[in-house]
Amino acid sequence: MSGAIGVFDSGLGGLTVLKSLMSALPNEDFVYLGDTARLPYGAKSPQTIQLYLKQNIEFLKNYNVKAIVVACNSASSVLKQESFTELPVWGVIEPGAMAALRATKNKKVAVIGTRATISQASYVEALQRLDKNIEVFQQACPLFVPIVEEGLYDDPLTNLIVYRYLNPLRTVDVDTLILGCTHYPLLKTPIKKVLPFVELIDSSKVIAEQLKAHFPQTEMEHTQKVEILCTDNTAQFQAMVNLVIGGDNFMAIQKVDI
Amino acid sequence: MSGAIGVFDSGLGGLTVLKSLMSALPNEDFVYLGDTARLPYGAKSPQTIQLYLKQNIEFLKNYNVKAIVVACNSASSVLKQESFTELPVWGVIEPGAMAALRATKNKKVAVIGTRATISQASYVEALQRLDKNIEVFQQACPLFVPIVEEGLYDDPLTNLIVYRYLNPLRTVDVDTLILGCTHYPLLKTPIKKVLPFVELIDSSKVIAEQLKAHFPQTEMEHTQKVEILCTDNTAQFQAMVNLVIGGDNFMAIQKVDI
Repeated sequence: MSGAIGVFDSGLGGLTVLKSLMSALPNEDFVYLGDTARLPYGAKSPQTIQLYLKQNIEFLKNYNVKAIVVACNSASSVLKQESFTELPVWGVIEPGAMAALRATKNKKVAVIGTRATISQASYVEALQRLDKNIEVFQQACPLFVPIVEEGLYDDPLTNLIVYRYLNPLRTVDVDTLILGCTHYPLLKTPIKKVLPFVELIDSSKVIAEQLKAHFPQTEMEHTQKVEILCTDNTAQFQAMVNLVIGGDNFMAIQKVDI
Repeated sequence: MSGAIGVFDSGLGGLTVLKSLMSALPNEDFVYLGDTARLPYGAKSPQTIQLYLKQNIEFLKNYNVKAIVVACNSASSVLKQESFTELPVWGVIEPGAMAALRATKNKKVAVIGTRATISQASYVEALQRLDKNIEVFQQACPLFVPIVEEGLYDDPLTNLIVYRYLNPLRTVDVDTLILGCTHYPLLKTPIKKVLPFVELIDSSKVIAEQLKAHFPQTEMEHTQKVEILCTDNTAQFQAMVNLVIGGDNFMAIQKVDI
């Protein structure tokens, strides 16, 4: 075993993915890169997201990583794995789609995400490639990221916004919903109010399971090293790192230029 | 007269400023740069906004501009005019503050803006420098840009969000409100519902008046040339250009790399 696992996200949402990976793979070291200067990715064109994705992966290679996880759904949806031959690069689309297929009983699955993720229809493509009888419904929820970034997880306003986006899904009888953005797990409570009987698929959990299969964890002692890099070191990012990762579990946040 | 006037914004909000300038200065040509790849600026750190501002001004110099208007309030709030000696660079803070001082009768003025603009307190500084007896109240409204970008100008959700941010201003008896972000004039109707007796200051109108004083317009015939550049050419940007500027009034939108 040599080298850390790189984790990349457009900003702070991917910290929940990093946290899941740290718990699931205690023998591994991690380098997290949050592209906080250029976030959010969800409203950008596929060409621009692809350019930023490539720059970020190239940048992470300088940190001697042995694999890279693209935690951001918008970036994962334009990821062409075959473009990166030197080391494995995993996105969250395929693992999320597989978990949804395991969960659904009536073969009706819904996907929510940013405009970029939904317009790429990459979850639809993955689901229907894995099971051609699956019926998929999509809904872009562009206001979810801003309300999460405002910390309004439990607020009457949030309930109204969630209802506005998700009410149409009540009429189509889906039994499984893919939370296609790293911010969305923070809205599980209001989402459950609108869709109480629907199973929610959280990609941060799924990707951790998948990586565990690739990197079996021995029981030896290991002091996990976690480096956190960002392109703009805002107070909001620092607060989120302390909240999600915990103050003692990582080295100082480092600002980098890409 | 030689050279166009450059107008820079973090994205599409500044198109309303461009439109005002085009009407007020019919003898002038314009080059508009929307930094759509890196928007929004309102949640970034002052250091990063300053870096992007400098890069964008340097870039516009390649287009033989004779002056530059920084339409974006977040960028204007970190603008140091003395850093740009080759050509005049105007922000929107000082003109907005001057217009508010002309409008207020009870000398109580409120400013709303992005987190970046409010934390810089540049309107407070400008207002109190111009009149030390002025009382200023500030309120950051981080959800206003996302709701405007979703086109929810007239929506029950928008009324609730506007009420949430602006209700505290009702108790402090301000008579003037500076709309400290290029997106906010699109929310005039819901803002008027919460603050019906308050005068709203729209920086796009004020800056046009100021420029007219610098560039007196003759009555000669002139076919106005308007170039529109952006760093990410999204469908949303194209739609906004057609809506605000009108399809026949500019040359093709050009994507540029900065």
